[in-house]
Amino acid sequence: MKEPDKFTIISELAKRRGFFWQSYEIYGGVGGFVTYGPLGATLKRKIEDKVREIFVNKLGVMEIEGPIIAPAKVFEASGHVENFKEPMLECLKCRRKFRADHLLQEATRISAAETEKMSLEEIKATVEKHGVKCPECGGDFAEPRYFLTMFETTIGPYSDAVGYGRPEAAQGVFVEFRRLYEMARGKLPFGAMQIGHALRNEISPRQGLIRLREFTIIDIEFFFDPENPECPLIKEVEDEKLRLLLAETRLKGSEEITEVTVKEALEKGYIGIPWQALFMAYAKKLLVELGVPEEKQRFIEKLPWERAHYAGQSFDQEVYVDRWGWIEVSGHAYRTDYDLRRHMQFSGVDTRVFKEYAQPVEVERRVIKPLMAKLGPVFKEEAQRIAEMLSNADPEDVEKAIKEKGY
Amino acid sequence: MKEPDKFTIISELAKRRGFFWQSYEIYGGVGGFVTYGPLGATLKRKIEDKVREIFVNKLGVMEIEGPIIAPAKVFEASGHVENFKEPMLECLKCRRKFRADHLLQEATRISAAETEKMSLEEIKATVEKHGVKCPECGGDFAEPRYFLTMFETTIGPYSDAVGYGRPEAAQGVFVEFRRLYEMARGKLPFGAMQIGHALRNEISPRQGLIRLREFTIIDIEFFFDPENPECPLIKEVEDEKLRLLLAETRLKGSEEITEVTVKEALEKGYIGIPWQALFMAYAKKLLVELGVPEEKQRFIEKLPWERAHYAGQSFDQEVYVDRWGWIEVSGHAYRTDYDLRRHMQFSGVDTRVFKEYAQPVEVERRVIKPLMAKLGPVFKEEAQRIAEMLSNADPEDVEKAIKEKGY
Repeated sequence: MKEPDKFTIISELAKRRGFFWQSYEIYGGVGGFVTYGPLGATLKRKIEDKVREIFVNKLGVMEIEGPIIAPAKVFEASGHVENFKEPMLECLKCRRKFRADHLLQEATRISAAETEKMSLEEIKATVEKHGVKCPECGGDFAEPRYFLTMFETTIGPYSDAVGYGRPEAAQGVFVEFRRLYEMARGKLPFGAMQIGHALRNEISPRQGLIRLREFTIIDIEFFFDPENPECPLIKEVEDEKLRLLLAETRLKGSEEITEVTVKEALEKGYIGIPWQALFMAYAKKLLVELGVPEEKQRFIEKLPWERAHYAGQSFDQEVYVDRWGWIEVSGHAYRTDYDLRRHMQFSGVDTRVFKEYAQPVEVERRVIKPLMAKLGPVFKEEAQRIAEMLSNADPEDVEKAIKEKGY
Repeated sequence: MKEPDKFTIISELAKRRGFFWQSYEIYGGVGGFVTYGPLGATLKRKIEDKVREIFVNKLGVMEIEGPIIAPAKVFEASGHVENFKEPMLECLKCRRKFRADHLLQEATRISAAETEKMSLEEIKATVEKHGVKCPECGGDFAEPRYFLTMFETTIGPYSDAVGYGRPEAAQGVFVEFRRLYEMARGKLPFGAMQIGHALRNEISPRQGLIRLREFTIIDIEFFFDPENPECPLIKEVEDEKLRLLLAETRLKGSEEITEVTVKEALEKGYIGIPWQALFMAYAKKLLVELGVPEEKQRFIEKLPWERAHYAGQSFDQEVYVDRWGWIEVSGHAYRTDYDLRRHMQFSGVDTRVFKEYAQPVEVERRVIKPLMAKLGPVFKEEAQRIAEMLSNADPEDVEKAIKEKGY
């Protein structure tokens, strides 16, 4: 008999000693949900407090606590309704459903990196080429389709008031940006953090605590002026060593680590934003303090097609574990102004900040000025509404449309 | 102009100073959801820590942390699917929906105590008698019906895997009873606590922070042997004064407070269970430490029809506030073995505990012994399954059925 591996031993021990176990065991358990017992809950809280110590007490990030459920609009604006989905294969015979990329990895030995970026068409072609059948009953698969991996519900008694369980706590910061900016006395930079449960309706949860349907997330959003991205605290960590697996290295098919100090990483342009480098250095120090040796940590730079839909330069902090190799423990993404811009578009509320220049700056800018004298006779009582829509449109889009289409 | 009352002043101040505000303001706000800002989140965490100090550090209750989402079965067993609902009135003209008891209170001046216990038939009769119309458009109402006030979702990709957001964190303790009992080394009494978000899909949330759709709940479940309900810690609080509004007083139409020490309350039978008295004394002390004066606190005993579906003797701890009078801040219910018994029925897993008697005790008990020799020839391959079902049936039910129906 094979020796049980470390993961199995630790999971069993954790269960026996009351650290954590699968929830709802008396009902057969439900995949992707765990309950932390007395020791686990205490340990978990201590880790959370450690994070507070670094980011709230030391860095001055504001901690807030918002709801887990949000109206659909929030996640439409954030791009999650469009992007937070996984390809799924359903067996025509037994009706079982599988996450397509995982199934193809197992059935065809194609790498995760490959299957994860497949389109529905590519999945279909791969299923046909390799003759992949249902692993449970041998049946054929229906056309692959997407499954939205957010928990959906309705808020209140009206069935059209769709709400989602948050898959990340970051949006709870972005939607409250205006209030938080006020609390930061109208000055950049500032940061806000949320610690709380997040929900992801995984098709097939697996890997113990790693891919859960409900878990605790710590989201820190840090807002800075992109025209002045300097970080006065960088001095304090500039000699900290980071182990980077850079995108350019990965594109050469190598996994070689570039070990540099924070200072070098910035000078050589490996990391674009000083604040991002600071957070990466803090994240590394946090893990060291939690007992993860440096050589079992790395930051892997995401390739463009691996990035979340909102992200510019992105690094995942990874930790090496015997059972699964390198696994992500934190993500460090330069989200640009994507989220704030989208919420401004979707809510119609201005989320921009006012910046005073030392010198007056002259800016040439195209604006749309609807001429009511022209609109009125044509559109009658609709004219006011149309004028408003025009004013809110992007001048460049309008100019482009006029040039290309003539209207 | 009327002066704004204390509630309005404090809500505005709380918003300005970043204690709390309605979530999703840029999207017009969503009723029943609040975000705690930096000061509010810190204050809230300090209150939670105060509770831990008393119940975890001092009393030795185990703190656990489980999921917010549970499979439907959990809340079917707990009785919530059947009972956690509110009567609703829908306007036939504008389709707006209202919580029936609140609407009738406002439209007819019938007291909350009266409207809350009305059946659908009584609501219908009251609407007709008083000619109650839609307050928004004056339209007529459809037949009143119940609205389930739990958030519903589906877990995973199968639409029949219904899940609910937990309206209380207590069930997360009950379903894990067997593990927790093990951690308590198989001995009673012991307690377990959860602090976390709870979800209640209110028809029309109101009253600021008081009736929210998402809020933080602290649930402590304490398990003791009903044949030995003595509480060794009661000495420590026996001189603590409790202000009780007893059921017998309320039934006389009075609101007179019976002020007694914990010791007297137990001796006079005002509180049946010593452990319940201990928790009430601790809850009072907690509020005093948080700054609520004793004379603004009371424990109101629930009348049978006001009690939650699971509860035996129940007290609500109430605090007097200028804006709304007495409001509930904690509930102290003797839940008997209701929850564990129900989960045993619904899961088929034994949740009973083993009790060793000092002396052997002889118990006469009816049991069902299926005779395979009789069942086999009749039911063939189904016989085994039927024998199992019979063994699991309640002997008294079976005896009664045989007596009444002959089979």
